[in-house]
This record gives sequence, C-alpha cells and structure tokens, in this order.
Amino acid sequence: MEFSRLAIVGVGLIGASLGRAIRRARPGVEIRGYDPRPAPANVPTGVDRWVASPEAAFDEADLVVLAAPVGAILDLVPVAARLCPARALVTDTGSSKVEICRAARAAFLAPAGPHFIGGHPMAGSERRGAGAADPDLLAGAPYALCDEGSAPPAKRQAFEALLRDAGARPVGIDAAAHDRIVARISHLPQVVAVALASFLDEGAERDPRLAELAGGGLRDLLRVASSPYSVWKDILRSNAGEVRAGIEVLVGRLKEISARLEDESLAEWFERGKRFREQRLKGGE
Amino acid sequence: MEFSRLAIVGVGLIGASLGRAIRRARPGVEIRGYDPRPAPANVPTGVDRWVASPEAAFDEADLVVLAAPVGAILDLVPVAARLCPARALVTDTGSSKVEICRAARAAFLAPAGPHFIGGHPMAGSERRGAGAADPDLLAGAPYALCDEGSAPPAKRQAFEALLRDAGARPVGIDAAAHDRIVARISHLPQVVAVALASFLDEGAERDPRLAELAGGGLRDLLRVASSPYSVWKDILRSNAGEVRAGIEVLVGRLKEISARLEDESLAEWFERGKRFREQRLKGGE
Repeated sequence: MEFSRLAIVGVGLIGASLGRAIRRARPGVEIRGYDPRPAPANVPTGVDRWVASPEAAFDEADLVVLAAPVGAILDLVPVAARLCPARALVTDTGSSKVEICRAARAAFLAPAGPHFIGGHPMAGSERRGAGAADPDLLAGAPYALCDEGSAPPAKRQAFEALLRDAGARPVGIDAAAHDRIVARISHLPQVVAVALASFLDEGAERDPRLAELAGGGLRDLLRVASSPYSVWKDILRSNAGEVRAGIEVLVGRLKEISARLEDESLAEWFERGKRFREQRLKGGE
Repeated sequence: MEFSRLAIVGVGLIGASLGRAIRRARPGVEIRGYDPRPAPANVPTGVDRWVASPEAAFDEADLVVLAAPVGAILDLVPVAARLCPARALVTDTGSSKVEICRAARAAFLAPAGPHFIGGHPMAGSERRGAGAADPDLLAGAPYALCDEGSAPPAKRQAFEALLRDAGARPVGIDAAAHDRIVARISHLPQVVAVALASFLDEGAERDPRLAELAGGGLRDLLRVASSPYSVWKDILRSNAGEVRAGIEVLVGRLKEISARLEDESLAEWFERGKRFREQRLKGGE
C-alpha cells in the first residue's frame, strides 16, 4: 500500500517540516492541514488544502499525523479513532509515548482499523512554528516508532518507507523504553539547561559582568533553554516519573563531583563523558 | 610604550591562537616561544623563535604570556618575577585568577618592575594543542584582566591596545569576582556536562538504543564534555570553593524542578532561562 491522502493536525515546526519533506519526496500526495492558527499563505508547509477542523482533516485521509503538543494529542486520539476511515494509519509526533500509546490502545479497538503507531521524530529546534520549518530537519534523524504490534505490517512498512523517503531513520522501540531513554537524552538535558540558565540569569541581574564575560560557547550549551515552557509543560508532566529518576541520579553525581573537586578522582567521569560524546554519538556528526 | 619582544610560554591552543592573532596585528614584533612539546614546524603559532626553556624566553622580553595550565602558571610566576627585565609586563591566561594573582602579589615585589596583570581570554575549544589554534579564536571574545592596580597605567594601556588589535575585548575585573563569575558561566557548565554525559554513557552501555535515538542537538549541548580532565583538574582544584557553591544552588534547583514537574510552576524558570540566553547573552550572537 501507499499513502495518497495525508492529514497533518498541528502544522507548527514539526508538522510543517514533515509536510515539506513529504511534499518533496512524494509530489503527488494530497496533504490536508489543520491548525488553530494556520501559517500565512507565504510560509511553505507542504499543506495543499487547509481545513477548518481536525474532523475535516480526518475525513477520507489514509495517513493522519497528529503533530500537536502532547496534551492536544491526548485529546485528539479518541476523536481520530472514531472518525478516521478504517484504511487509515494514525500517528503522532509527541515527545513522550507511554501515555499517548495507552490512550491509543483504549481508543483504537477495531481490528479492521483505523490503526495507530506512536511516533517521535528525534529532531527539533528551540524555534517554534511553521515559519521555522525546514524540510531537512528530519534528515538523518532517528524517528522512534512505537507500534506495539497492533498495526498491520503493510501499513507500518508503508509508513516507514515514507519516513525514509522524507530523510528520517525509523527506529522501532516500545513506549516504556522510549520514555526512559528520552527522559535521559532530551528531557533531563532540558531541565538542566533551564536550571543553569535561570541561575545565571539571577547572577547576571546581581552582577552584569557575568553576562559581559560569558563567551559564545555558553550560547550553544544553553541553546535548548530558549525552548518555551508551553511545549515542555505537557512533556514533563507526561514523563515525570522517568525525568525525576534521571534528576535523582544527576543530583547524586553532582554532589559527588562537588566532594571530589580537589583530588584527581574525577578522571573516570571526564573520560566517560568524552567517550559518550565522541564515540557513542559519533553517528550524529 | 609598545611591546616589541614577546615571549609565549606554553604554545598550545590559547598560546598559539594569541600568537597568531598578535603576529597578524603587529607583523613587526618578535615572538619567542617555549613549550615542553613544541608544535611541528608546519603548524602556524605566531612564534618566530623557539627557545629551550622558560628562562630563555623571559630574557629580554617586554611582554611575557604564561599560557600554560594553571598548575604550571603557579610554578612559573616566581621564576618570571625573578628573571624578566624590569620593563616587562608578565601576564597569564589561566582560567582561575585568585590563586595566580595571590602568587603574583607575593612574587612581583619590586615597584620598578617587572609587573604582573592576570588575564583570562574567555574563548576556547574542546580541542587542544597548537594544531587547533585559530587567529580568530579571540575575535570579539571578552578578555578578563585582573591588574589589582599594581602595573603602571602605560603598561596596562599598551597591553589592552595589543589585545584589542588581536580582536579581543578587555574587561577589567578583580580576581575574586572573576572566579565567582567563571565558576558559574564556565566551570559549573563543565561539571554539569561531564555529569550528564558520563551518566548517559552508562545508560548507553546498558541499552545501545540510547545512543541510537540521540539527535544531533545533544552533541552541541555536550560539546564541552570533550574537553580533557588534564586541563580541568587544576582549574577545578584552584576554584573549588566557588564551583562547590554553584553546584549547591544548581542541585537545589534541580530538586525543586523534580518536585514541580507536574504542576505549572516551572514557567518562571523557563522564562528566566530563555531571557538569559536570548537577551543577556545576545552580544554573543
């Protein structure tokens, strides 16, 4: 099978980047878009037909991408299960998967379809909105897929082929493992950057020389701190247990580092850290 | 006054970047270099005469830059005070200043000179050695100067003029304020990156999907974790009190975030963090 009528519900940074990448890879598909605040006509999104409601997007679609914030995805899942055609595959782009996949299991009950596969493109930007979209955002990026065996293989394969054509690299994973891992590689770095940047903001308020002395490296390191709370509120709430577990380990490690600043026993953690970035992450270069 | 005979002791990333920037700005100066492992002849460093010892570099110099690790700078300070000509200005590039400036106060006793001004170029790279040097490394970067009023104004002004010609932006600050600030903007981010990256390395060891799912953003965020412990050991030891104070605040904030993941009360820290990066640091763009 091959998808010919797509619906993107939530046409922001991720929805529009995906839309543009799919439009480029598959010029023939129809892409309907719904967004409470649609992008202006001069902003490319891949969408060729804007509709006035999620319901109007679901109608006749064979692939539905829920690219809204996590809380909105949770609201949309049962509506999509009720209104999408049986042939449709419904997917999402939410940053946590356990809660969304649980909601989908409860909503997508008919074996004949429609079917649901949870998705999470591991790419992003601290910028928001369709205006920041980039058809190359997904290029080479891992794209987590949590299908839990419920979708027919043909639908899953067609979706994976589409993602590959759009430049992404599908990685199958169960929702619990996904949430545990992204808590560590994405949600924990986010809260650490926010904790550090907010602390520095207070320091700079007291002594402006702090900002004056800061080099450009700090801007890169704190890039994710520019990401807005409106995006993160739902993510952190929906994955709070795993994020909390990550914070606990990190806090313990920071206390140990604090106790060992004056001896030479930090070498192992420095080496591990260097190895993680330079060897394990080297695919990202 | 104007400097015509420079000595750079420690010709690694910082020494060679400074050497090349000065060579470009002031083609006429003589630059002697000493390094226990001198760069190969085909690596540009700005040095036009290599010498076999720090002592040989001090001889006849009017500007001496100690660009070695902090521990080596502490050893070199009394030697430079004893051997440099009275007309010389001695400076360093160490990442912490209280200990070095204290050592310099004890060593540079003659009012007639030589004189000492502590320095710290707020630029760097996770790479090391003269091979990674870049004459533009200092371009636009803040360059902290701690002179504590001991050097004659003419020497200080000549040094500031040279730094400006080399592209840097001199910022006068006392050593205690410098160390408190860099603990927050540089040393704390370093230990946080090491704590996080070493934790992720352990996670990836247990589950390789962790590294597989990590996007390119994590590489940027953890860039400083590639910096070697051999550089950081001295820095963390010499500024342990301030680093410890910073870790304590950060740990407290992470615990508060952990307790508040499920309500909406993190908005203020997200906003502060965003403001710090986008408004206070905007000069770095």
